[in-house]
Amino acid sequence: MDTDPVLPGPVLVIGAGLVGSSLGKALNRAGADVILEDLRNSHALVAASLGAGRVSRLGPHDVAVVVVATPPATIASVVCEALERFPDAVVTDVGSVKGPIAEAVAELSAYSDRYVPSHPMAGSQFTGPMTATADLFRDRTWVITPAAGNTEESLDVVRSLAQLTGAVVMELDADLHDEAVAQVSHVPHLMSILTASHLRGVPGENLRLAGQGIRDVTRIAGSDPGLWRQILSTNAVAIREELLEVAGDLQYLLSVLDQPAKLEEFLRLGQHGALSLRGKHGREPIDVVSVTVEIPDEPRALGSLFGDVGDFGFNVEDFELTHDAVREVGYLSISVERPQAEQLRANLVGRGWKAWSDTGTEERI
Amino acid sequence: MDTDPVLPGPVLVIGAGLVGSSLGKALNRAGADVILEDLRNSHALVAASLGAGRVSRLGPHDVAVVVVATPPATIASVVCEALERFPDAVVTDVGSVKGPIAEAVAELSAYSDRYVPSHPMAGSQFTGPMTATADLFRDRTWVITPAAGNTEESLDVVRSLAQLTGAVVMELDADLHDEAVAQVSHVPHLMSILTASHLRGVPGENLRLAGQGIRDVTRIAGSDPGLWRQILSTNAVAIREELLEVAGDLQYLLSVLDQPAKLEEFLRLGQHGALSLRGKHGREPIDVVSVTVEIPDEPRALGSLFGDVGDFGFNVEDFELTHDAVREVGYLSISVERPQAEQLRANLVGRGWKAWSDTGTEERI
Repeated sequence: MDTDPVLPGPVLVIGAGLVGSSLGKALNRAGADVILEDLRNSHALVAASLGAGRVSRLGPHDVAVVVVATPPATIASVVCEALERFPDAVVTDVGSVKGPIAEAVAELSAYSDRYVPSHPMAGSQFTGPMTATADLFRDRTWVITPAAGNTEESLDVVRSLAQLTGAVVMELDADLHDEAVAQVSHVPHLMSILTASHLRGVPGENLRLAGQGIRDVTRIAGSDPGLWRQILSTNAVAIREELLEVAGDLQYLLSVLDQPAKLEEFLRLGQHGALSLRGKHGREPIDVVSVTVEIPDEPRALGSLFGDVGDFGFNVEDFELTHDAVREVGYLSISVERPQAEQLRANLVGRGWKAWSDTGTEERI
Repeated sequence: MDTDPVLPGPVLVIGAGLVGSSLGKALNRAGADVILEDLRNSHALVAASLGAGRVSRLGPHDVAVVVVATPPATIASVVCEALERFPDAVVTDVGSVKGPIAEAVAELSAYSDRYVPSHPMAGSQFTGPMTATADLFRDRTWVITPAAGNTEESLDVVRSLAQLTGAVVMELDADLHDEAVAQVSHVPHLMSILTASHLRGVPGENLRLAGQGIRDVTRIAGSDPGLWRQILSTNAVAIREELLEVAGDLQYLLSVLDQPAKLEEFLRLGQHGALSLRGKHGREPIDVVSVTVEIPDEPRALGSLFGDVGDFGFNVEDFELTHDAVREVGYLSISVERPQAEQLRANLVGRGWKAWSDTGTEERI
């Protein structure tokens, strides 16, 4: 959309937990009028006191948009209630699983055409309004899974809502969404859980050997078990399918533990997957280019060069030193990812080094 | 030890990769004389230029300590060579697996009494001397697994070496060490690999839904496959045993995906494991205490209170608002971990709030 996102009126956020309160803060900051509601009135009051909106009694025509941010197992029934209570409102939710909720609403409510299912890909291992932040959604993907009967106007309301928080809107079929979150969120969560739960058999003394690696792998396992039980139960079909594939991979891994070449091949598959999450370019292999620098035959030249390279903050993949016996100079070839090569070269030249990039085909440019 | 650690003479570090170069930097900073050696002379020169030591030709009596920091598969033979080349030196290594290396050295070398196996619990997903840092070992555990024939003097040399880097020395039987690293390092690494390699079947479009969780779980899967193939192959026996248990857990998880109560119980086991890695107290459950604050019946009092609590940076586990209708004041009870409760109370009182801690038994103190 080229125009700035606008909402047709006040927004009611039901559920003042981490996501609901963060949403209130983000919308408030963007100038929206936000009303907060929570079964535990304490939570709504605290969220309001933290800048997430206001607490107020509402008539049926007081809100234009309702966002349901309650625990996953309650979402479908709270959505149906909201459609009933607020006959003018577009209702959406933030549930992590979309198909089953949309089906339940379609079955239970006569007003399901006003329900636009959505899912902001944002959260944390913390819970409650005190950990809320207005930046939770910034640059995150906010998925909308349009339901049967949704009008373009209703969809636009939810698109605007998402954009006001700084999120990037993506539309997806509900079943595809549920498969995707099984793959990139639910299965990784369970892998974290399996890793962390395995520590139950580990003597306390051995935990002293734990480093940053296991801490990273198990961070999300620290999340609220009650919340995750609800998420995982709702998406059990898609998760089971993925998890069976992982179980197959685990058997394969066990079978190649003693076969170095096959083991390394599997580790490489994992490295490839990990790198595909970092770059913007999907799963392409790393494309590395060399930048070559001439090193004058002076004491401390190499140290000074590495000082400069370090200042630039590039990720150096590899390097090689060579010497030209006739000209009495050395060369250092630094390998970096292709998109960084030209910048590295320019920075080096800017600090007075003779430097050039090699293309992948060994031509100098 | 009460005395400051001292080394009996120059240290030769063989292998100028991430760990060797970081070690050189740390020892150099502590005042030791460090000589660097690497099959790829470029790497030794670069490490030296970055402050990790000096490059020099050595006679048999020129070094007092040798640290072997070469790729895992080469360590045993490089240790044996070093014992032969430097008849006065204590030789240690930084290999991630201890039993098989110690056995190989005992079998291959007549001087194995001078070899003290050790393993600093430090590294990163990066490789090479350019990513080295003198702080790599600070506050990390450095395990020594004394071998048959090691004298107390030899052990003291390696203890001093570790202490000079800022590491905390721990002595352990080699087999126990290898079991412990299988549990807290190698199996978590493979879980990260399994999660990341599973992305090979995921459509690129679906990766747009990936959040921070999967990135954390898969970070270490980005590590060098060749290095990890060597580490994992050497410890395959211990790893297989742990991995079979994980495979059993995975089957159990699949069987309870549709049983919410059992699923939540398993998630709780994972949460418990994850939390046991964070605290210093092993695997004790979280011990939560309430701090109660009186809230005057004034506008903005609650917002101001939460502003203060936010400033203190405590991790609030839960809270509850109550109201005293007679005195016309409210109370906020904030739950935090026991060790933080007194500090939170004192900070609140310091900012002018009436606040007190509740002990677990509901007595006020």
